[in-house]
Amino acid sequence: MSAPGTVHGVGLGPGAADLMSLRAERLVRATRHVAFFRKRGRPGHARRIVEGMLRPDAVEHAMEYPVTTEIDRDDPAYDAALAPFYADWADRLAALAAAGEDVAVLCEGDPFFYGSFMHLYVRLRGRVPVAVVPGITAMSGAWTATGEPVTWGDDTLSVLTGTLPEPELTARLARAEAAVVMKVGRNLGRVQAAVAAAGRLADAFLVEHAQMPEQRVVPLAQAQGAAPYFSIVVLPGRGRRP
Amino acid sequence: MSAPGTVHGVGLGPGAADLMSLRAERLVRATRHVAFFRKRGRPGHARRIVEGMLRPDAVEHAMEYPVTTEIDRDDPAYDAALAPFYADWADRLAALAAAGEDVAVLCEGDPFFYGSFMHLYVRLRGRVPVAVVPGITAMSGAWTATGEPVTWGDDTLSVLTGTLPEPELTARLARAEAAVVMKVGRNLGRVQAAVAAAGRLADAFLVEHAQMPEQRVVPLAQAQGAAPYFSIVVLPGRGRRP
Repeated sequence: MSAPGTVHGVGLGPGAADLMSLRAERLVRATRHVAFFRKRGRPGHARRIVEGMLRPDAVEHAMEYPVTTEIDRDDPAYDAALAPFYADWADRLAALAAAGEDVAVLCEGDPFFYGSFMHLYVRLRGRVPVAVVPGITAMSGAWTATGEPVTWGDDTLSVLTGTLPEPELTARLARAEAAVVMKVGRNLGRVQAAVAAAGRLADAFLVEHAQMPEQRVVPLAQAQGAAPYFSIVVLPGRGRRP
Repeated sequence: MSAPGTVHGVGLGPGAADLMSLRAERLVRATRHVAFFRKRGRPGHARRIVEGMLRPDAVEHAMEYPVTTEIDRDDPAYDAALAPFYADWADRLAALAAAGEDVAVLCEGDPFFYGSFMHLYVRLRGRVPVAVVPGITAMSGAWTATGEPVTWGDDTLSVLTGTLPEPELTARLARAEAAVVMKVGRNLGRVQAAVAAAGRLADAFLVEHAQMPEQRVVPLAQAQGAAPYFSIVVLPGRGRRP
């Protein structure tokens, strides 16, 4: 019986291929089994980042989410549909590792920061070797894109999600120094209202597709309509600046 | 007159050389003028990460902080000593760029996230071309080291500094879901007390030298004495997990 392989959660960074780490690049180029999440009918964002880098004999495992935006994420049916999906893929990747194969799971951003890989990770650890390569987060990509440093001196940073109820979002933003709002997308109107109610609208940026060719940075006050799901709002801190 | 060069703020990531991005590696290897901050009498942590990677004809600019731990960071004398230091180095790097030379400023972690480079950046922009390469933050390195994913579902993440007064730290930790405390160092006792008062001591990790050969991860409850300045406390979130 061969030694088990390792399942690697590989952080690819915010989107530009040259923002992946040297360690990530080595794993992407060298590993035969490559797995990635995607929505049905889409190429998969993580897969797109590594285009042209895989081994000629790579075996690709497209892990297609069983649910779409048709089920609201607050609906218990959403979790009910996802749990068996993650369990099934954990079993498949564990079987590959048990047979001695390494697997690279491609992850946008950083695997442990709001990543789908986490749901595989907690089901795999203890069963087969698992390793995680951190990546540049989407929020680092976003605040870099604004051209404004985000945390100064002893500034705190509050990372929030646009899915929070508006009063909650407003209260947290009002207490925040630097802040980032993830998962803006269709919550854009609510996020704008909360940032305005917290008195920070003049400071805030909306960043769409950070560090990708289609990157767009606009003052949040000027944003209209809906934003792409992975859009990020950034409020730079105002701490001590010698 | 030649076209101006660019001052690049180059994020190197948390410490392991292979966690720098491909873009950072290219700049480190190709750029003749390389600048980095360090304490007097120390090799400089960012410089250590790129050991063996610089051009044979590289010109190294060691930017030595004029103040040490002898002046408390809350003392106005601290800022008074740093402001002319940053202004002087901004002038020197601007002069290099104006003469057509590119400069790579080596930055631990991510340049816009609690980075000294920010103080050069705000003094350089508008005068010469400046570009920033985001990096894997030290906190990503730290939470990856704990082996516990940090933000689940709609968890918020609070990034705090160990320099905050203990009641303030306690109050913010009590409201936090996932949390990171930066700049623990000699504030370790206070941070432990605040985490305990917030009822989260059992969840918390202390990570020293994340992603470096001397990395050490211990339950915060078991940490004693002082920790290295760049130690980080991580409290993983407990959000929805399908």
